Amino acid sequence: MPETTRSSAPDDFAGRSPVSARSAAAARETADLEAFIASAGTFDAPDPDLNDFSFGNPHEMPLQGLVDALRRGAEPRSIDWFAYKASEDAPRAFLAESLSRELSLPFEPQDVALTAGAFGAIGLAFHLLTDPGDEVVIPVPGWFLYAPILRQAGAIPVEASLDPVTWDIDLDAIEAAITPRTRIVVVNSPHNPTGRVYGPEIWTRLAGLLERASARIGRRIFLLSDEPYRRIRFDGVDFASPAAHYPWTLIDYSYGKVLLAPGQRLGYLALSPLMPDSDRAALRAGAFSTQVSLGWTFPEAIMQHSVEALESVSIDVAEIEAKRDVLFESLTSWGYDLVRPEGTFYLWGAAPGGDSVAFAEWMRAKSVLILPGTLFHRPAHFRLSLTATRQMIERALPAFEAGARFGA
Amino acid sequence: MPETTRSSAPDDFAGRSPVSARSAAAARETADLEAFIASAGTFDAPDPDLNDFSFGNPHEMPLQGLVDALRRGAEPRSIDWFAYKASEDAPRAFLAESLSRELSLPFEPQDVALTAGAFGAIGLAFHLLTDPGDEVVIPVPGWFLYAPILRQAGAIPVEASLDPVTWDIDLDAIEAAITPRTRIVVVNSPHNPTGRVYGPEIWTRLAGLLERASARIGRRIFLLSDEPYRRIRFDGVDFASPAAHYPWTLIDYSYGKVLLAPGQRLGYLALSPLMPDSDRAALRAGAFSTQVSLGWTFPEAIMQHSVEALESVSIDVAEIEAKRDVLFESLTSWGYDLVRPEGTFYLWGAAPGGDSVAFAEWMRAKSVLILPGTLFHRPAHFRLSLTATRQMIERALPAFEAGARFGA
Repeated sequence: MPETTRSSAPDDFAGRSPVSARSAAAARETADLEAFIASAGTFDAPDPDLNDFSFGNPHEMPLQGLVDALRRGAEPRSIDWFAYKASEDAPRAFLAESLSRELSLPFEPQDVALTAGAFGAIGLAFHLLTDPGDEVVIPVPGWFLYAPILRQAGAIPVEASLDPVTWDIDLDAIEAAITPRTRIVVVNSPHNPTGRVYGPEIWTRLAGLLERASARIGRRIFLLSDEPYRRIRFDGVDFASPAAHYPWTLIDYSYGKVLLAPGQRLGYLALSPLMPDSDRAALRAGAFSTQVSLGWTFPEAIMQHSVEALESVSIDVAEIEAKRDVLFESLTSWGYDLVRPEGTFYLWGAAPGGDSVAFAEWMRAKSVLILPGTLFHRPAHFRLSLTATRQMIERALPAFEAGARFGA
Repeated sequence: MPETTRSSAPDDFAGRSPVSARSAAAARETADLEAFIASAGTFDAPDPDLNDFSFGNPHEMPLQGLVDALRRGAEPRSIDWFAYKASEDAPRAFLAESLSRELSLPFEPQDVALTAGAFGAIGLAFHLLTDPGDEVVIPVPGWFLYAPILRQAGAIPVEASLDPVTWDIDLDAIEAAITPRTRIVVVNSPHNPTGRVYGPEIWTRLAGLLERASARIGRRIFLLSDEPYRRIRFDGVDFASPAAHYPWTLIDYSYGKVLLAPGQRLGYLALSPLMPDSDRAALRAGAFSTQVSLGWTFPEAIMQHSVEALESVSIDVAEIEAKRDVLFESLTSWGYDLVRPEGTFYLWGAAPGGDSVAFAEWMRAKSVLILPGTLFHRPAHFRLSLTATRQMIERALPAFEAGARFGA
């Protein structure tokens, strides 16, 4: 029999929660997300009648090219097939070459750290570059998990609002957000949730701003370019990475978007080849132990073996673009105020009536699941994921049409 | 053209390294490991003539049961097969039932957090329970990555030595290591590197110690029971988990050992069902956001789909035991001072001549790779991994025999 049992002692001393302050801070940042998931109520037992525009999750069977790659990856061809995998040489070399071609910059294999998705790459960048109390400037609206990752790391997210009409990057807002504790500025293009794709002019101006600000505070400000939607663009719009404009840029990438398979995690953090050698050497050396000490955040063996095969596998971007057209044009014709996305698989706009939570609840009652802007700290807006099927779109259009008058 | 280029600015201001203090601290803790890997020099291009006793890595083709499970896991049977996976209901329920049977304790599914291996589970426990400056008592010798994970988290590893002759847990050493900042005590059974398996008597006494120490410092001290070798035991020795003796116990487990496939990561962190409901509720709630904010540290979809199929898959423990016997008896007969392991796949003993780095280098020149005790903060000892093949053992025995006189 145990010497102590459940009843023999107080739950904790002084009634304190056993959860650490940092985990509690992260939990506060994910509270809106958790509340939404709980209220949606369909994640464990998907409702076939639900028209789900919430997250970038698959709603059709996985891509055949992905299945083929995973099948081959699961078939061992050497003794060390499933041995410990860190950032392995072969996928690193392949990715450096692929990225060099894609961005016209000469990436080196040793500057590509393989991670279990972009989550892992972003976490790596934040831990590698910040200490508790350091500040990181993040775009708002923007991905809702930069802030919890920063809070868990003891770093402080500082919001820089995008232009509320055009959703352009607002350099004045970034400038105003920078303090002597600023360590990283985060940018995201194609941008979640607005679908904006930013061009080289803004990167040139941002590079100048960061150069001057770094000199002013006497400390190098790094740029994290969050590019998981890089290959999901519409209307032939070009992609430009700030890594070509500001040498102290780190790029994070995820295969979860282009494969629409976020449950098989593969991504990377890459250092701009323009970064001075001494800084790159220090960050290379720090990346391995940081990934080990964050919990061995390298991709699984199967995913590492699949890198080359996955290069040409992608969701049908033209089909996403076509779904964008149907939704954008229909909703706009009914009076919605939307951004026409140039990339990503999201559609962003003003919630009819101005209260996105109320609007989302009203739509949910009509079997349409949309994401309220509260998750993006923009409660008057909402986001739709274009990963919803054509059938879902057709079934949901009447609800959207009726919803145009919500709150009026 | 970029506005700033590689040559236009100093590397960083004041010549500072861009690496964070926490990542630098973690790197100092992994320095011996990295130096060993670099000196071994064979990880990227395995040397067929090398007799590798270093890490618990596979040296034969993967288990057929594992390959079958992965093959099935890679075959999608639903739309959400590769969608976002957190701690999914089905594997949680299965593991809670399996663990309840194995440890004769009624685990609840919601108290099992699925992780990408034990690394992830240990990282989760450390972040969930400690804040920067908190202290965690770890066994020495012991797994060499508790300390870097703690340093990355800003927590302080405090070493509690095992008995230097029997390698028993030394309760006086743990008592002496506890301070008002102590948050967790880590135990590991079966124990890496000594192979010791600890029985219920020591857990009863440890529970009493932790109960009294918690009351003394006015703060609950948690126990992390690191059990990845739980199913790898010899001579019919029983397993006892401290989770049955101290209610504030968290268990971490990894499939990487029993499957000998550390590149496909699956593990969990489970709360003792004896823990008071209020503490369990707080930790359950905190675990999700902690895993999200550490970089989505849940297992891959394929591994989650494989949990049930993997339940009965295992390396041949009798064969490991037989290899233990060959090595233990041969080396002992030549004068080595070794611990006879009761579990794990390691063999631990005193390095001939007393300098494990010199002894390891001497053996390396004879194509035998052993792990110097410096990695365990015990430089006079060394560790062998019994995952080496029979052929490697046979080829290495002459070197071990000659090595018995090393330094003499």
